[in-house]
Amino acid sequence: MPQGQPAVVPDDGLTTRARRDRPLLIVHTGDGKGKSTAAFGLALRGWAQGWPVGVFQFVKSAKWRIGEERALRTLAATGEGGAVTWHKMGEGWSWVQRRIDPGAEPAEAAREGWAQIRRDLAAQTYQLYVLDELTYPLKWGWIDVDEVVEVLRTRPGRQHVVVTGRAAPPALLDAADLVTEMTKVKHPMDAGQKGQRGIEW
Amino acid sequence: MPQGQPAVVPDDGLTTRARRDRPLLIVHTGDGKGKSTAAFGLALRGWAQGWPVGVFQFVKSAKWRIGEERALRTLAATGEGGAVTWHKMGEGWSWVQRRIDPGAEPAEAAREGWAQIRRDLAAQTYQLYVLDELTYPLKWGWIDVDEVVEVLRTRPGRQHVVVTGRAAPPALLDAADLVTEMTKVKHPMDAGQKGQRGIEW
Repeated sequence: MPQGQPAVVPDDGLTTRARRDRPLLIVHTGDGKGKSTAAFGLALRGWAQGWPVGVFQFVKSAKWRIGEERALRTLAATGEGGAVTWHKMGEGWSWVQRRIDPGAEPAEAAREGWAQIRRDLAAQTYQLYVLDELTYPLKWGWIDVDEVVEVLRTRPGRQHVVVTGRAAPPALLDAADLVTEMTKVKHPMDAGQKGQRGIEW
Repeated sequence: MPQGQPAVVPDDGLTTRARRDRPLLIVHTGDGKGKSTAAFGLALRGWAQGWPVGVFQFVKSAKWRIGEERALRTLAATGEGGAVTWHKMGEGWSWVQRRIDPGAEPAEAAREGWAQIRRDLAAQTYQLYVLDELTYPLKWGWIDVDEVVEVLRTRPGRQHVVVTGRAAPPALLDAADLVTEMTKVKHPMDAGQKGQRGIEW
């Protein structure tokens, strides 16, 4: 556990212990690598804390996270940490697996995903939510930014939320407690290299 | 697997398949969060590929990565993916556990860690190396930057290496294939918040 004095002690009447258990809204944005990878790294910590973790992937192809998914599902199956529930838009979301039209409009699928997250937040289903690449349906106008920000701001209990993706909207950044921008300094694909097995997926 | 054409096709005579298996030197630097977390996320992918993964933590306190360590050790123990070997400077490195002087100078311990990495690279012990916070002993002059760069540049086989830490030296960035800078946009500790259980460690 990190020690040391913060630069400012908030006048919030909370004990240090209480301040260690406050819910965070975290955003990983920018054009660089590592936004999702770091979010899945946080899922490892959540698992180790015994938290129920919910992953929602707002991408059409699920192939890019296949290593993380396998690892987190394997961890969850050991029963030694928290449960991990993995939902993929690209496979029609698990909770609507049978009912969804495979040719359903992506915008509609994205909205269904958000509606479920909203229900889960209200029910406090998970202690950590990884909303992977949520910024894209926000950017494309499929899901309303103001509604998302309002729901996240007013979520009950001590639920941590990590949102990943490029071009996070300003209102989301304003609402976030912790924002990291991943900036590409150098990338091998610029020199014509291909994605590397085990590194890119 | 990602598809699509790179902007430039290198004139290296390699097939696409061969270009997918080239060893990468990756650096996560900057003042923001997620440098180590994203590196441990890469370790998940390496595990899922069945790779032997070696983690070397160049930090005195091991508490901050306790969740990732537990998760990766649990994964390795399932036998369903690669082996994960975890070495900590703060505990005197596992390979010298009995012999090291608990009061050994940190600079000496850091040099011992680097010497082992050098031997492992020569022996091709791992397919992925996470050199966590290696930039600090480089910055403090405990380990010679030019030697590290030369050893990493000339490592044999197809060994991926991820180096994390602030203020990565320019020679290391020059040698790297992939560099991501994590930039702090907003951090709750700026507002006097404490580190959050399950998020910071």
